[in-house]
Amino acid sequence: MANTFGSIFRLTTFGESHGAALGAVIDGCPAGVPFDLELLRRDLARRRPGQALTTPRNEADEPEVLSGVFEGRTTGAPIAVLVRNTDQRSKDYSDLKDLYRPSHADYTYAAKYGVRDHRGGGRSSARETLARVIGGAVARMLLAAGTAVDVRAAVTAMGPHSAERPLAEMAADAVYSSAVRCADPIAEPAMIAWLDELRAAGNSTGGIVSVRVENVPAGLGEPIYDKLNARLAGAMMSINGAMGFEVGAGFGVASARGSENNDQFIRGADGLETSSNNSGGIQGGISNGMPVEFRVAFKPPSSIALAQQHGAATGETVEHAVTGRHDPSIVVRAVPVVEAMTLLVLADMWLMAQAGKSLVVSSQ
Amino acid sequence: MANTFGSIFRLTTFGESHGAALGAVIDGCPAGVPFDLELLRRDLARRRPGQALTTPRNEADEPEVLSGVFEGRTTGAPIAVLVRNTDQRSKDYSDLKDLYRPSHADYTYAAKYGVRDHRGGGRSSARETLARVIGGAVARMLLAAGTAVDVRAAVTAMGPHSAERPLAEMAADAVYSSAVRCADPIAEPAMIAWLDELRAAGNSTGGIVSVRVENVPAGLGEPIYDKLNARLAGAMMSINGAMGFEVGAGFGVASARGSENNDQFIRGADGLETSSNNSGGIQGGISNGMPVEFRVAFKPPSSIALAQQHGAATGETVEHAVTGRHDPSIVVRAVPVVEAMTLLVLADMWLMAQAGKSLVVSSQ
Amino acid sequence: MANTFGSIFRLTTFGESHGAALGAVIDGCPAGVPFDLELLRRDLARRRPGQALTTPRNEADEPEVLSGVFEGRTTGAPIAVLVRNTDQRSKDYSDLKDLYRPSHADYTYAAKYGVRDHRGGGRSSARETLARVIGGAVARMLLAAGTAVDVRAAVTAMGPHSAERPLAEMAADAVYSSAVRCADPIAEPAMIAWLDELRAAGNSTGGIVSVRVENVPAGLGEPIYDKLNARLAGAMMSINGAMGFEVGAGFGVASARGSENNDQFIRGADGLETSSNNSGGIQGGISNGMPVEFRVAFKPPSSIALAQQHGAATGETVEHAVTGRHDPSIVVRAVPVVEAMTLLVLADMWLMAQAGKSLVVSSQ
Amino acid sequence: MANTFGSIFRLTTFGESHGAALGAVIDGCPAGVPFDLELLRRDLARRRPGQALTTPRNEADEPEVLSGVFEGRTTGAPIAVLVRNTDQRSKDYSDLKDLYRPSHADYTYAAKYGVRDHRGGGRSSARETLARVIGGAVARMLLAAGTAVDVRAAVTAMGPHSAERPLAEMAADAVYSSAVRCADPIAEPAMIAWLDELRAAGNSTGGIVSVRVENVPAGLGEPIYDKLNARLAGAMMSINGAMGFEVGAGFGVASARGSENNDQFIRGADGLETSSNNSGGIQGGISNGMPVEFRVAFKPPSSIALAQQHGAATGETVEHAVTGRHDPSIVVRAVPVVEAMTLLVLADMWLMAQAGKSLVVSSQ
Repeated sequence: MANTFGSIFRLTTFGESHGAALGAVIDGCPAGVPFDLELLRRDLARRRPGQALTTPRNEADEPEVLSGVFEGRTTGAPIAVLVRNTDQRSKDYSDLKDLYRPSHADYTYAAKYGVRDHRGGGRSSARETLARVIGGAVARMLLAAGTAVDVRAAVTAMGPHSAERPLAEMAADAVYSSAVRCADPIAEPAMIAWLDELRAAGNSTGGIVSVRVENVPAGLGEPIYDKLNARLAGAMMSINGAMGFEVGAGFGVASARGSENNDQFIRGADGLETSSNNSGGIQGGISNGMPVEFRVAFKPPSSIALAQQHGAATGETVEHAVTGRHDPSIVVRAVPVVEAMTLLVLADMWLMAQAGKSLVVSSQ
Repeated sequence: MANTFGSIFRLTTFGESHGAALGAVIDGCPAGVPFDLELLRRDLARRRPGQALTTPRNEADEPEVLSGVFEGRTTGAPIAVLVRNTDQRSKDYSDLKDLYRPSHADYTYAAKYGVRDHRGGGRSSARETLARVIGGAVARMLLAAGTAVDVRAAVTAMGPHSAERPLAEMAADAVYSSAVRCADPIAEPAMIAWLDELRAAGNSTGGIVSVRVENVPAGLGEPIYDKLNARLAGAMMSINGAMGFEVGAGFGVASARGSENNDQFIRGADGLETSSNNSGGIQGGISNGMPVEFRVAFKPPSSIALAQQHGAATGETVEHAVTGRHDPSIVVRAVPVVEAMTLLVLADMWLMAQAGKSLVVSSQ
Repeated sequence: MANTFGSIFRLTTFGESHGAALGAVIDGCPAGVPFDLELLRRDLARRRPGQALTTPRNEADEPEVLSGVFEGRTTGAPIAVLVRNTDQRSKDYSDLKDLYRPSHADYTYAAKYGVRDHRGGGRSSARETLARVIGGAVARMLLAAGTAVDVRAAVTAMGPHSAERPLAEMAADAVYSSAVRCADPIAEPAMIAWLDELRAAGNSTGGIVSVRVENVPAGLGEPIYDKLNARLAGAMMSINGAMGFEVGAGFGVASARGSENNDQFIRGADGLETSSNNSGGIQGGISNGMPVEFRVAFKPPSSIALAQQHGAATGETVEHAVTGRHDPSIVVRAVPVVEAMTLLVLADMWLMAQAGKSLVVSSQ
Repeated sequence: MANTFGSIFRLTTFGESHGAALGAVIDGCPAGVPFDLELLRRDLARRRPGQALTTPRNEADEPEVLSGVFEGRTTGAPIAVLVRNTDQRSKDYSDLKDLYRPSHADYTYAAKYGVRDHRGGGRSSARETLARVIGGAVARMLLAAGTAVDVRAAVTAMGPHSAERPLAEMAADAVYSSAVRCADPIAEPAMIAWLDELRAAGNSTGGIVSVRVENVPAGLGEPIYDKLNARLAGAMMSINGAMGFEVGAGFGVASARGSENNDQFIRGADGLETSSNNSGGIQGGISNGMPVEFRVAFKPPSSIALAQQHGAATGETVEHAVTGRHDPSIVVRAVPVVEAMTLLVLADMWLMAQAGKSLVVSSQ
């Protein structure tokens, strides 16, 4: 449902951009998982770069763990984590009370709900992703306790610039050390310059986040409607500004022949592998043990400094330029969110696989 | 969960390619909806072209409505529809009992379940989509009773060939009269020739299905995780062979500026509209009243006549050429399935919107 | 939701009393469970005594397994089972088209749905419980494969007559050999005579079904809202005619002192046990390894041969005596249904416990 | 699932007795509902009598509304409410670290989770019901905005004492003015004396909460498994210490004849009514417009001052008398919790009915 994600490992989130706090409640996490507060802090910090490149909103985002952890381990009870909003500056947004910004959720929320918390986007604000990162961090703790799953995500395209270096060669630390979340020696400076240019022009840019997950156990994903790729697609497209999702060879398959696209079996160290990975590690909706690989396209932020045609509650249109803080990209800040959603899907699918464990010894 | 789709308008399906029957149970359909058996038959026929272009499997696919309909109307009770398998020919597949075909679900099902119904793919067969089409037909009946929603889908790319004619100008009848589900005077014959060439070569091709839904009421979709685009993405990626999903401007946004991508408000006949539709009719996860537009990429079918490296239960690889019926494309047959999943998502979201109806008179 | 029961082990049912068929779809059953068709037939036969004591409706109730089973084992795919209605005699009910029978669902279905399948109660008929028994039989197969759970149920009270013999001493075969599902040498003949008397008088009687489940592993049940007792209560009260549920000492606790009611710990063969079982094997919503014990009260069937005040669609009341088949008790036929719902709850809770398995070795 | 209650109107709760805070997240509440903070405070105060009769734990229980409310109305976003624990005194419970108290959840939590927050019962503490009362208060606001539903609950039995006055004649204010939540001139002083006696003896007592809901619209409840009575039963039995549930004539039906138990139709002011209400306002699982009436039996609190046989993690038993705060009854404090769960079920069922609204004009 609306504000809950997952079937067994379930994240419920709440909070508005300019309300008192954002929060996450994680239910279904097994007991006994070592709870790593530093890991949670690190993941939250990765979402809040502090560099000039992103929104200059300067909140500590210090998480308070309210429940579900006792003597350093999860207890099986719901884990609630709260982050106070400390920098709300509501007045920035008062001029937007009766205006709908282009390509924002203002108009659709008004149409759906009748009432609307217009301060900074309210519930539709990107600040909501903070709660997803909390959930992702707990999923990471669970997966670390039970599997060797390793998620890697980075910005691989932004405006006209693309990374050449494969994701497998970008270490997570290097990605998060990069101001544009791209550990590619050529693309990184180009992207930085591109963002500077757009910021100066009061404009914004789109981009792509790529993901590679290693050590996904074979057998995750549920046919028919809960395929691993379907869950990942839904998870990614639920992030603000996501406009496209592709797995493995993605949209490239449209012009491929079967003989080119099929992943041939080879003998690997631990059993069968495939010589290519056009399937992105998923066949028939179930992981096959190869790396899970996908990409998510994010649109340029709708908030720009240029004058645009806004809608008014009266049905009129109004030319208006929004003042205030503008981030010239979503994609940079989206990297840890994409990672978090990936972890949430994998944790849920892994627990589901425990529940559905075959009573026959597998033939593999 | 695995074999149920939807939250309020829920489709549960069952059946294997070579089992006794396929079936669909639709729960949550309100009472009083006129039940149109001819519409159901038509939708099933659209999935089963009969032309030489697709699998020459010749089943009547006659639906039997077992429950939930009384004197021509739905009663609020679950609607169960059964279609018998009448052309199973199990012997075709006996050579695959211990082999995993490349890029099929054979290996992953074996890894997950230990046991496997190897006959024609079992539950992972594309025949499963028949039950989705049944669900989609009932969703269509509901939406026809309560809204003016109009779904249009067609093949718009296949191998090197793309349609130029916009989807808005392809009538549904014209699409389904086309052997390649593409009512474009230039692309259609090119696609037909392309399929002939691949079939002769024992090969297969990928393609793209595009969708345009008109008259979607503003306000459908639930933040945060049940965004309309997230639900559509999950629904589409749950279809066998889907490798990519994009809404509105899709992956094109990665290289766009905000000033180019934002949809400016204009005054329309019935209130606010937008001058462009890069958002694909969805903003903040909620429909804005503009046409909902998206695309789905399908891979070339994995079953080809050429020799390929199969996996064996022993961990060995085996060069093998699969005999039997091969369809050189998924994408042609996917069109009514994409339509069905779209209808299922919209029906569910429409009922959810009824449940969540604001107690405030909308400001629009 | 309405016609689906369970979270992981999920039963979806369909069908009306006088429609084409009843059916059950079981999703979430792990692969590899030996499928025992004879057990399914036996459980269905137990619901359909054939003795004069219950409805003289004479249907074979032969189950057809449509999917999910291959070479004698479950495959992880949904298991669909169909039972045709072969003895519908719709004309029996035509006089009730515009009348609402007292204490039936006629009026409430009309109020809720506007349209109504009046033939034999439609979806609200007790015939619907057939599909529950199918689901229960599959749950029994799963539990047999993974646990030693043993469910015992019997009629322990009917009208003025109560069984003295404890349930632990009534073998299942003896219970189902009894025409009143009560293997008590004194109560059984009294109940049989009581039913004869009521049938002759055109009247009906209520009663109680008691349940005792042995070998329930400790740890089943989920706090807070999915407590094992809460799930059992919801399951039992979902059966037609159930009016009360109590676990362990039940309503008797209202007049008990803590010192009398508390179950003191004792040392058992395999660890801690309790000297009494007023908790009914459940503490804090979680099974403690002692037998799970509860009781369900069923009302007398509303269909009697005596003249009663019916409601009419016009808002008038009409004195009317319903003709046709009348069963003087629900409770006899309810026994296998209560058993089935118990098995469904336990199967679901057992799989849930697998998913939530602690990552710490238990201290017990 | 475990810590979430409801399908559309959903309450997710978290927090332990001796943790930082308890919290409730309400999702699915429509926008535009006037948010009444005073009503929330009143409902919380009703749970925390302050009289000597209940646990002398003296917490303010001041709710902080973190999200989902803007300018006095709900916005459609999740409503999170936090209550800090301010009086935890963990040391009281340190002697119970390795002991399982009789008839508590200590042993079962240890068996299930391996780790256990032993401080005051942790998540299994009755303090958890505070979050239910928060959810119930929001449900009350929703129902007040959309219906005339009026819930009345009171203690009607305790130990040997029962109220004679019908619930319909006990005003809510009078109930909550009574230290035993029983506005009966004879039973109230008897119950007070009874509690004094048990407290002095270090013992405890069970009791019964009765509920009567007026103005429930006909048509609430979903067949088959989501019957209104099934949902109420599950909700009530999820409350700590609930051992029995009965609706309408309840367990009394076991000895009744159909001719006595059936509710005859009569003409009422606004259409059909029934002359008796043995059905408790629910027929076929759906409300019929008559008052919804049920009862819940609560056991005596397990915590008593007398020496009892505890279990130890080693498998030994230990005679031990628990010191600390003891409440001689659950049932007094359960009244507002029973009310809250009733409101939560009705709110959910009312929204579900909106989603499933028949497309046919009802014949009534």
